[in-house]
Formats: sequence, structure tokens, C-alpha cells
Amino acid sequence: MEYPILKGIKTPQDVKRLDSARLQALCAEIRDCIINTVSKNGGHLASNLGAVELTVALHRVFNSPDDSIIFDVGHQCYAHKLLTGRFEKFDTLRTEGGISGFMNPFESEHDAVITGHSSNSISEAYGIYKAKQLSGQSGMAVAVIGDGAMTGGIAYEAMNNAGNGKGNFIIVLNDNKMSISQNVGAFARSLTKMRNKPKYHRFKSAFSSFLLELPLIGKGLNKLLFSLKESLKLIVYKNNFFTSMGFNYLGPVDGHNIAELESILNIARNYDKPSLVHVVTTKGKGYAFAESSPKNYHGVSPFDIDEGIGLNDKFTFSRIAGNTLCELAEKDKKICAITAAMTEGTGLVDFAKKYRDRFFDVGIAEQHAVSFSAGLAVGGMKPYFVVYSSFLQRAYDQIVHDAATANVPVKLLIDRAGIVGEDGVTHQGLFDVSFLTGIPNMTVYSPSNFEELAFRIKQSCGFDGVCAIRYPRGSEKYCGEFDIASDYSIVRGSAEKLIITYGRLYSEAFAAHERDSEISILKLNKIYPLSDDIAEVISTYNNIHIFEETELSGGIGEHISSKLLKLGFRGRYTIHAVDNKFLPGATVSSSIKSCGLDADTMFNCFTEN
Amino acid sequence: MEYPILKGIKTPQDVKRLDSARLQALCAEIRDCIINTVSKNGGHLASNLGAVELTVALHRVFNSPDDSIIFDVGHQCYAHKLLTGRFEKFDTLRTEGGISGFMNPFESEHDAVITGHSSNSISEAYGIYKAKQLSGQSGMAVAVIGDGAMTGGIAYEAMNNAGNGKGNFIIVLNDNKMSISQNVGAFARSLTKMRNKPKYHRFKSAFSSFLLELPLIGKGLNKLLFSLKESLKLIVYKNNFFTSMGFNYLGPVDGHNIAELESILNIARNYDKPSLVHVVTTKGKGYAFAESSPKNYHGVSPFDIDEGIGLNDKFTFSRIAGNTLCELAEKDKKICAITAAMTEGTGLVDFAKKYRDRFFDVGIAEQHAVSFSAGLAVGGMKPYFVVYSSFLQRAYDQIVHDAATANVPVKLLIDRAGIVGEDGVTHQGLFDVSFLTGIPNMTVYSPSNFEELAFRIKQSCGFDGVCAIRYPRGSEKYCGEFDIASDYSIVRGSAEKLIITYGRLYSEAFAAHERDSEISILKLNKIYPLSDDIAEVISTYNNIHIFEETELSGGIGEHISSKLLKLGFRGRYTIHAVDNKFLPGATVSSSIKSCGLDADTMFNCFTEN
Repeated sequence: MEYPILKGIKTPQDVKRLDSARLQALCAEIRDCIINTVSKNGGHLASNLGAVELTVALHRVFNSPDDSIIFDVGHQCYAHKLLTGRFEKFDTLRTEGGISGFMNPFESEHDAVITGHSSNSISEAYGIYKAKQLSGQSGMAVAVIGDGAMTGGIAYEAMNNAGNGKGNFIIVLNDNKMSISQNVGAFARSLTKMRNKPKYHRFKSAFSSFLLELPLIGKGLNKLLFSLKESLKLIVYKNNFFTSMGFNYLGPVDGHNIAELESILNIARNYDKPSLVHVVTTKGKGYAFAESSPKNYHGVSPFDIDEGIGLNDKFTFSRIAGNTLCELAEKDKKICAITAAMTEGTGLVDFAKKYRDRFFDVGIAEQHAVSFSAGLAVGGMKPYFVVYSSFLQRAYDQIVHDAATANVPVKLLIDRAGIVGEDGVTHQGLFDVSFLTGIPNMTVYSPSNFEELAFRIKQSCGFDGVCAIRYPRGSEKYCGEFDIASDYSIVRGSAEKLIITYGRLYSEAFAAHERDSEISILKLNKIYPLSDDIAEVISTYNNIHIFEETELSGGIGEHISSKLLKLGFRGRYTIHAVDNKFLPGATVSSSIKSCGLDADTMFNCFTEN
Repeated sequence: MEYPILKGIKTPQDVKRLDSARLQALCAEIRDCIINTVSKNGGHLASNLGAVELTVALHRVFNSPDDSIIFDVGHQCYAHKLLTGRFEKFDTLRTEGGISGFMNPFESEHDAVITGHSSNSISEAYGIYKAKQLSGQSGMAVAVIGDGAMTGGIAYEAMNNAGNGKGNFIIVLNDNKMSISQNVGAFARSLTKMRNKPKYHRFKSAFSSFLLELPLIGKGLNKLLFSLKESLKLIVYKNNFFTSMGFNYLGPVDGHNIAELESILNIARNYDKPSLVHVVTTKGKGYAFAESSPKNYHGVSPFDIDEGIGLNDKFTFSRIAGNTLCELAEKDKKICAITAAMTEGTGLVDFAKKYRDRFFDVGIAEQHAVSFSAGLAVGGMKPYFVVYSSFLQRAYDQIVHDAATANVPVKLLIDRAGIVGEDGVTHQGLFDVSFLTGIPNMTVYSPSNFEELAFRIKQSCGFDGVCAIRYPRGSEKYCGEFDIASDYSIVRGSAEKLIITYGRLYSEAFAAHERDSEISILKLNKIYPLSDDIAEVISTYNNIHIFEETELSGGIGEHISSKLLKLGFRGRYTIHAVDNKFLPGATVSSSIKSCGLDADTMFNCFTEN
């Protein structure tokens, strides 16, 4: 496709000049471009397809970048990118050095803030809004947030703060009824009611027909009826979740009708109180496969447009985690699995089906997930919270306060630990090692292959305290044979050369050892707390390089160095890790290489010095 | 007072046997005992006084410990402690080895979980409730939560999960209209409406009088009127925040009327759906000073019962922080101060009065506070989020994702960093050093006295990135003279003896130096990132002891050790810190001593080895 209209959109101002017919054509081009690019590069598909008309309408009613439009998470920001000068570069989406799959202020002035984690858009937008008010700048701020993201506690904290305020702060609720797979919880049910409003309509018609049958209805009663209708409308429309949070509620509106969208957004724009605009969209809109199965088309790898995505039969660490939990749950009725809206991503689809009463999807609510798990554990169950490393950051306090302080058997299965690849800076699992190993009572394992992961999950089942098992995205690589049951295992080479590592990088170390059998490897299975004898074992080597797929500061390399120093170690010791920086998107193997954590670097580090 | 009734209460079962008159007398005894003990030991007064009848009613309707009653935060759990076998020990409240000021499962089977941080009670209670359902145990779970704690996002996440569920899960909302000082935000306004319900009453009476004036009103219309009233009641009562979260709403009920409380709690107990019971209480009830000025009697130091608390004119680090912000704000219109319901505790009372439009109390919502600050910074303001170290844990992800990744100038003023004293295990500020120094782009200062704190706050004003300034609870101690403007300063003794330290402990080191002038001190002013030359400077000494008021793992001592090892350091290096354990309550000086961080230990460590 040639994208004749899209090609002409250099800034959002160009969108304002199009007539209705060309707007329709523009939306078709945007959809085609998104489908094409994502089919090649992978990315978030269904949510982006649902937000095309909404994004067009937003850019017609508001003036970006004077008005800041913040797309929560960023699963719905591709159309925004295409309309804000990034069409030419869009084919580099999610590639190394290319444009990010999320909002990124280093990429465009139209992206005011970083997005990637869920539910923070209202807070950020409200901050920007207040800053504009306080400093007398023109311009507004609009948070565009999905119904799934609305289940995150920070969204509620932000509404509580922004509601009842002065001025036209706007939240656009993109309600696609889905979250990532299916929106869960009481809030989702409330939304359904708002979408349908049956109570008001039913009551109104019953009342009207009754009155019509009454004799001698005078003007007074007609007037009464009118005012009653208005009052009822007020009560029924105005008493919903959003109005109780202090927002003027507008909607619901068809999220694929640009004219209606513009009209309701203009009402909100010209109102002098905070408004919430309820927009109903279809996830996957315009691509039949995605519309009929939106959860499978949420985040996708490259695929054939005519065929749709293939059945994902790949064995991944996620799959092993899910299968192992199923195996345990079959025998042990105390096993529970908890997810924060990541049933598919964390491999829990089977568990959810088979052990429905012991499966809990709590919404995008990692804080609650950990404290709820702590409660389950206090009540005698064996809860496993399965979560991406990056998103677990949300629950740091709950891990400390509710799990570790009480030392209850909450188990954290941490998926996507380490480098995650194309999702980039906001999704890297580079902090869990440092933040978990600073917490008393915590035990952390970092398995290197499927067998070790399954073993550690099974073993943790009988463990009476809080414990974390972290594993990378994707599949295992060749690691040779090693003792999966001990706290550490050693591949013996010479006493001159030692590589210390754990998790996925062990396969890199093993490859280096296969090229130079003098390279010894100390593979840490339990990475925290470290074995009492670990410093003594290490100090028998003279030249030591530790490689870890985490931030350097607070990592295992530092923990070990204080032990070595205490022991009076006299050899050479070098830590290789992510050098206290944020890591942008690239393939996993490319990032591992650029951070100097690959087999080549391991092999070379002994010859170079 | 002799407490004749209280003395006889060995278990909550004993409360069930009392008649109405003796219940009244019991409540008076409980109040007297709380006021007496808190006047001697300090503690949380006003909130505990407000919850006396509620606690008595809860223990009459439910059977603790079979039924788990979880008091959020624990600011309202003293009566619970007195009724669950802890009356005899109550005079040890908040003392070393005595009973904790918060719920603590290591203290009593009636305290199912740790409390101390806000808003997690619903999650924990719901976890316990589901565990009981799943394992077929009898017993229920009740979360008792204040209106202030309801502003925390995790409470909302939990309601979203628990709402619409099966079974009689119960939330008791203790609505004292106050939070810690004054409850803020849209949710608080909604509560006020629920308390008063003016719309329904006004509408009903207007409608009735109108109808009475109409001629020829038949039975049909009377019937209609009745059904209309019921429908309206349904709509107005049922459409509130809690019903939209899937809860059966019961209330409001007078929280000082035991009979009414029992009756409404019994309704909730026998309902087969989750209920929220809205209880209206008076904070400070029964002690005139506290009733008339509840926010001053929230958390108190020992005081004279007849006189009330004194005016707190002590100079503290908190006060200096607040004053310095006021000074800056006077000159620089971009300075904003943000607090999460801690205006008094963090010294912001004056700022709040003087710079009202640039002061933001966002509720107990640390996550939002950080992301909102990030938004303010993106909009060009200079936000300072002033927060206790322990509570900042809630915002770890937002610090990483919204502040540090985008590297926007959000300033964190971290009060109560280090050991906090009597509040104990849940309030210690022992984690901020490790979790902040694992974050890229972060700069951390740890001033030792008032002058240094004021200097760093002023300096940070022109700093373009994210930055944290951490300081202890209470007042400064003598530190001698030092260079406050450099990254570190040195007190010169011999090359044999070096103490490295920072923050409050510098005064201990200085005292050790005054006893032995051979002891050199390296005082770190900027603790992260460390100066490039720090390892070289340190390695000129032979025997080094670093003392830090934080957890050992992930602390500055470890960061330094990896640098020393890299440099080939050959001397002795010992880290003294909190040895990866949770620290119970005691006075600050006693804890510093028991952790081996005092001047005596510093002096002795060189002679002992």
C-alpha cells in the first residue's frame, strides 16, 4: 500500500485539515500500516487497532505537543506515532536504534513521558496539567487509559487527587472490555453496567406507561414527570464510580465514530471541571483474526497477515513454570496461582482452566497480588505469584512488609528476569536481583534451564519462607550437565580462570568453557543468600570474572566482593554486568553482546589481561 | 484506676458475656488505660480512642482468632490488644522487648498479619478469607480500615478483586473523617455525601408534598409512589463507590453505639455476599484535648494527661526540611511540595499555609505522589516529594519508571531514614539506601546535621535530574566542623585507622575520633554515585571500618568493596550495618548500640583486632 494520506501527515495539524471521507481513508491506511509493520517486527497489535479513530479524533480536538496526550502503557500509541512525524521511521518499530513500542520523550516532543508500565498516565498527565496551570502556560493534558489499566491502584490514587479539582483535566477511558486478555473484577462489571444503563431505561419506560394510563393527568404532573426524569437521570448517570471520584462523566460513546468522538471530546475540553470520557472500542478492529481473538493478538511475534499468527507451541520457561504448577496442584490442593492480568504471558492458561478455584487473576494489581498471596499463605495455602520481573517492581513494599517481615511462604515466580529484548527500557528485568537481595528472609534462585526451573518450583513447595525463582524470557539454551540440586555447581578448569555466573548466562559461560577447557565455572543456583563457603571456594582462584544479567549496583558481584574482601582475597576480580544504565530495546542476543555478557567476551576476558 | 472489668477479660469470649451497662464501663476502662499508657510511652492516641466501641462490637460478633480481624495500619488496634490477652503487658507498649504498637503475629494468635503500612488490610484479609473457603476451614475474615487508608491504591485493587465474590467477606470502614490529619481527595467528598445522603431525602420530601397537593390521587398513584420511593432508595443507596466495587453497602452507623454496631455487623456476617459496613466514629473520642484537635493527637510523645501535649517546638530534621522548602519557595515560584498524608510529620505545615497552590497532599498514595511529581517536573516545576523512608518503598517502581528512566528533576526528601525507634519493624528506614542506589540516574545525599541538610536541599533546586536527600528522625547531634559542600570530607588521624560513615552516624564517629585522634574519618556527603577517586582515597588506609545505618546487603559498604577489590586493595575492610534482619522497636540510641553502630563500638573496633 502506498499510504498517500498518511505520507502527507507531518504533524498533527495536518490531521485537522482532512474532510470526513479522507479521515476514513486515513484510518484505513493507519490500520494497514500497523498490521504490516507488526506482522514483520512483532509488537502490540489488537489494542493499537482499536484506538485508531480515537487517536485521530484526539489529534483533531487537541493540539499536541502544546496539549500533552499521554497514552497509558503505550499499547495503543502506534497511531499516535504515525500522526506525529514518525511515519517514515515506523518500519524500524521495536528494532535496535529504531522507534520504541511505547511512548518515549527521547524520541519525540509529542511523547511527554515514558510509558510502558500500566496505570500511571493519570498521575503523570495531572502533574503536567497542574504545572501548566501554575506556570500560566496554555495547553492541556489528557490521559488515555484502557479499562484494564484502570484496575491498577495508582490510577485510583490519581483520580482521587485530580477529581473535584478546578479546570478541564481530561481522562479518556478506552474501554475495549479486555485489558490484556479479559478485564477482571468489580470495576469491569461496573463498566459493563455503564455501557448498558439498563436500570435507568427500564425504570423510565415503566413509569411513563403507567402514567399514561392514569386519568386526569394535568400539566402539573407532566411537569413533575419531566423534572422527575431529569432528577433520575442525574442520579442514575451521576452516581457511578467516576462521579464518586469527582469526575464529570461523559459517555459512553462509540470509539469508532470520529464525529461523535470529536463532539464529546470538545465538550470535555470546554468544561471547567475534570471530565472522564467513556469511549467504547473494539480491540483488534479492522483485522478479522484480531477482532475474533483479541487476547491472542495482544502482543505478537512476526506473523503472516493472511494466515494469522501460528499456534505458539514453543517451549519456554513460562510454559515450564505453568506446567510445573499444574503438576504440583494436581497432587497438592493447597497450591494456588496468582497472576496480575498475565495469564497467557506467564504460562498459566492450563492452570486457569484446570484449577479454576485456586487460580486468581487479580487485574493489573501487583501490590494486591503480593499482599493477597501473603493472606493466602497465612491461611495455610501455598500461593505462587507468577509475574514479570519489571512489573514486580510495583510490589516492592508488599514483598518487604507483608511477605518478608512476617516471613510467610509466598513464592514469587519471576518471568522475564534479565534482558527482555524488543520491548526495551521499561520492560527489562534488570532490577529484581538488587531489590530482592536487599530484603531479609528472602531466598532467590536463578535457574539456567527448564529442568532446573521445574526442580526449584517443586522444591519451593515445601519451603516455609518467602522465596523467589527468577527465569528469563524465551527458551533454554544448551548448558551441558550440572547438579541442579545443590546451591552451586562447578565446572572444573584451571585455578587461574574462573567465571562466576547464574541463570541464562550459564549457557554462555559453558560455551566459553567448551572453547577453552581451562576456564572454570562457578554456577550459582541459589543466588541469595550465598552459601557460607562461597567466598572460600572462590578465593582458591586467582583471576575471577563474574557475569550477571542485571544492574551492577546491588548485584551478586557486589555481594560477593564484600565477602572476598573480608576474607583477605588477593587475586583479580572483575564484575561484568549492566553498567548502571537503562537498556533500550534490541534482540536479547544483541543486548547480551553489547553489554559484554556473551560467550566471546567471556572467552576473551582471560586472554586480554 | 483499677480496671476491674478489663482485668477479667482474658480472651475475646469474655467480652461476649458482659451486659450493656458493663460494656459501657469496659469502654471507659479501655479509654482510660489507653490514655494512661500512651501518656507514658507515647503512641497513637486519637485513632485508638475512636475505635473502642467498634472493637468491642467486633469481638462480640466475631470469634477471634477463628475469625481473623485485621486492623489496617494498626493505629486503631490498642483496644484489640487489650481484649486479646495483652492487658497485663500493655504497660510495655512500644518499649524494647515489650508489645508492639501495631499488629504482630509473633505477639499473639489474634494478630494474623503484620500491619504498620497503610491500606493492605483488605488484600491480606481477603487472602485469609479465600484460604479458609478453599480449605474448608470455618471462620471469616474482616478488614477494619480507616477512611484515610482507603486513599491508598492497594485498597482499591483489593476491593476490585474481592467485590462481586461469593461469601460473607467483610470490610469495616472506620470513617473518622480524618486520615492522619484530614482526609483529602474525591473519595473523602464521596464519603461525606454518603454520611449525609441529602439528595435522596430532599428529593423524597419535595416529591411527597407535591403529590399531596394534587387532586384525585388514587390508590394506583399511592402504590406508584411507594414503588418509586423504593426504586429511588435502591438507586441512591446502591449507587455509590462501594457498590460499584461490588460490595453490599451497609450504613452509615454510629460507631459509638455498641448495640447498633452489633446489629449491622451481624447483618454483614449473615449475608452471602461481600459487605462494606460504613461506621462513623469520632477521632479522639473520650479525651477532650484529642477530640478537639485530633490531628495533634494522632501520634504523640509522652505527655501530661491533665495538660495535654506541649507545643512541639523542637528543632528536627523534618522542621529544617520544611523551613528550607519555604525559603526556596519564596524566591522560586516553581518549587512545589508534595506529601502523602504526612503534612505534620514531614514538617510541611508552614509550607501548606504559605504556598497553598503549590502544596499537594495527595492522600496515602506514595505511588501517585512520585508519578505526579514526575508530571510536574515534565511541566517545568520543581517538585519535592517529602516522605518517610519506609513509606517510599511503595513507590519503588514509580521512582524507577517515571522519574529515573526519563531522568526528570524529581526530588525526594526522605525523612525517617535509618533507625526510627519505637515504631519498630514496619517503620524502620533501612531499605532506601539499597533500593535507591540500584537505580540508574539516581543521586543520593545523606546529610549529618541541619546545616548540611539545608545546603543540599538548596543545591538540589538547580539540579537537573532525579535526586534523593535522606535524613534521620529527630534532632541533630554534635558533629564538629566539616565541609558540607564537597562530595566527602575527611577528618585526619593516622593512616592505620579509618572509619567510613555518613548521615547521623557521623556524630558517633566524631565522638570516637575525639576519644582517639588516630581515628580518621571519611564522611560521605554524597553517598551515590560515589566519587571516582573514592576507592583510591580509601585504599591509602590499612584498617577500614564502614558503619552504616541500613541493611548490609546492597548498602554503601558493598558498593565500596567492589571498587576496592577492583583496585587491588590489600588492607582490612569490615562493614558494620544492620545484619540483613528486620529490626524491632526500641529507642534509637538503644538500637544503634545493639546494632554495633555507636561511638563505643567504633572506638573499640580498632583495639580489638
